[in-house]
Amino acid sequence: MHSAPVTSPPAAAEGRLPFTHTLSFRVRYSETDQMGTFYNSRPLEWFECGRSELFRQLGMPYSSLEARGVFLPLVEAHLEYLGRARYDDLLQMTSVASFAGRARLRCDVGIVQAGSGKPVARGHTVHAFADRDGRAIRPPSWLLEALGNPEARGKSDPSRPISEPS
Amino acid sequence: MHSAPVTSPPAAAEGRLPFTHTLSFRVRYSETDQMGTFYNSRPLEWFECGRSELFRQLGMPYSSLEARGVFLPLVEAHLEYLGRARYDDLLQMTSVASFAGRARLRCDVGIVQAGSGKPVARGHTVHAFADRDGRAIRPPSWLLEALGNPEARGKSDPSRPISEPS
Amino acid sequence: MHSAPVTSPPAAAEGRLPFTHTLSFRVRYSETDQMGTFYNSRPLEWFECGRSELFRQLGMPYSSLEARGVFLPLVEAHLEYLGRARYDDLLQMTSVASFAGRARLRCDVGIVQAGSGKPVARGHTVHAFADRDGRAIRPPSWLLEALGNPEARGKSDPSRPISEPS
Amino acid sequence: MHSAPVTSPPAAAEGRLPFTHTLSFRVRYSETDQMGTFYNSRPLEWFECGRSELFRQLGMPYSSLEARGVFLPLVEAHLEYLGRARYDDLLQMTSVASFAGRARLRCDVGIVQAGSGKPVARGHTVHAFADRDGRAIRPPSWLLEALGNPEARGKSDPSRPISEPS
Repeated sequence: MHSAPVTSPPAAAEGRLPFTHTLSFRVRYSETDQMGTFYNSRPLEWFECGRSELFRQLGMPYSSLEARGVFLPLVEAHLEYLGRARYDDLLQMTSVASFAGRARLRCDVGIVQAGSGKPVARGHTVHAFADRDGRAIRPPSWLLEALGNPEARGKSDPSRPISEPS
Repeated sequence: MHSAPVTSPPAAAEGRLPFTHTLSFRVRYSETDQMGTFYNSRPLEWFECGRSELFRQLGMPYSSLEARGVFLPLVEAHLEYLGRARYDDLLQMTSVASFAGRARLRCDVGIVQAGSGKPVARGHTVHAFADRDGRAIRPPSWLLEALGNPEARGKSDPSRPISEPS
Repeated sequence: MHSAPVTSPPAAAEGRLPFTHTLSFRVRYSETDQMGTFYNSRPLEWFECGRSELFRQLGMPYSSLEARGVFLPLVEAHLEYLGRARYDDLLQMTSVASFAGRARLRCDVGIVQAGSGKPVARGHTVHAFADRDGRAIRPPSWLLEALGNPEARGKSDPSRPISEPS
Repeated sequence: MHSAPVTSPPAAAEGRLPFTHTLSFRVRYSETDQMGTFYNSRPLEWFECGRSELFRQLGMPYSSLEARGVFLPLVEAHLEYLGRARYDDLLQMTSVASFAGRARLRCDVGIVQAGSGKPVARGHTVHAFADRDGRAIRPPSWLLEALGNPEARGKSDPSRPISEPS
């Protein structure tokens, strides 16, 4: 479902899920704790930075989604802590966004030490589509089409809240 | 200017500035850093907790202010770091809210170790009155009167943004 | 495995896992984001507050564990976001600590709105036993015995790092 | 390498205070609050990122200072909030490090919108020199010389704690 059709030209494949993005960053002092490594909630903040850059590279900055009234709140997050990372360590984070059914996005993330490749953390987040008030909506067709969802056939209606995301 | 009129009955004096509130709390693990004490930005988060409880005790929870369209963004903050506080240390924070001119609130805060009284940090924040979009407004008369501002004479008009807070 | 023997006197049952603790707290302003509810990493910080109070009530404050050289770093965390919680909302968090094998602790946590009982988030964390340098250790027998682990038979040796926690 | 010979050409003068560094970064979603802009404590975290890069460019990463037992805890911080910055806004931060007497460092920081130059925040931090246990020390001569302090004449003794930083 996620693979682009064989005949699609390279240009058209851009901006389609699954989409991979890699980001390098350093651990901030504010992100450490007295154990001497990053505090356990920081990877979720880093995951968010990765999603921001991934969406920007998709040609669809997340801020522009919210400006159009589409929010992507988390419904689930999972984290595994694989190794230490200290203040100022240079880390490399790879994020892969994909569809998880029709009304969910999923990001799978891995973080390693940039130099050694030693694993630091991995995990994933699952996102619903919601309106400004947090109510679940069907993803707008302009968004599904932009992201290359094969199920985007103008079926969705972003203005109609749904009680249970399908 | 800040003192309540001599003849005011005790009940009427409540809810008037200057107003003092004391709050006890423990340092969270997430608030430490690798130096082994609280990270330097945490006192601003604690100051905010103090303001929240102070406004609640004033009979005017800050959430109710925002619900009525009045925001109190910071225009200035000052911090002095006086001593260490480690994870799980029980701290005592005293916050004093007062007017700073007609269009500013000020909170002076001191934090000490609850047991020994040893100083940890002190500082202050200065707050403007703003609308939902962050534009400076004259403080609404209902708010000034509630807070006991002697200059509250129905002069203020909360619906009229002002370019420069007076 | 987790249930205390039927014949144990009430006093002995205290301080034994599984152990449940409930904590009430308000959402801080610093914990919100521009979506108007708590930012997605905050529950992990709240979980930590719950563990701190749970361990204190077990008669074994987590700070005393670290003082004795035993650290409980996270190896895994899982979160489900079930409902909104806004600034100043009063939440109630129930944490249940239990053993997960011989060398792991697990905390299952549920957070609801204190008034309505409406679910906000739930999840769990899994913790290894580690020394000051983050190396996995077998949990010390004094700790296992204190926590009521039926497998505590003096088998463990806290001074010997193990490459793979069993 | 860092001490400038008397006849040093301008290039060798690098690594001396006052030293200026500019850093560009985007506002993270985790750094916003329900007011729609950055939460008031975030500038202190950004200031720290600026100091980290400034020290790295001085040829003296802050992590290497701590590795040699020299810590630079804050003794004072001051912040002025000058304008809004929203999620994903690209900001430009200029940090200037200088000596404040013999036993203090000072960083003056200004943050503007990268595109428009519109001011966002400004402030400063003042830092003591301390050992691993947080006790004030005289700054080591190797550090003073490296930073180009004219008062560095081998007078300082890093191993001797001082009760009051001079």
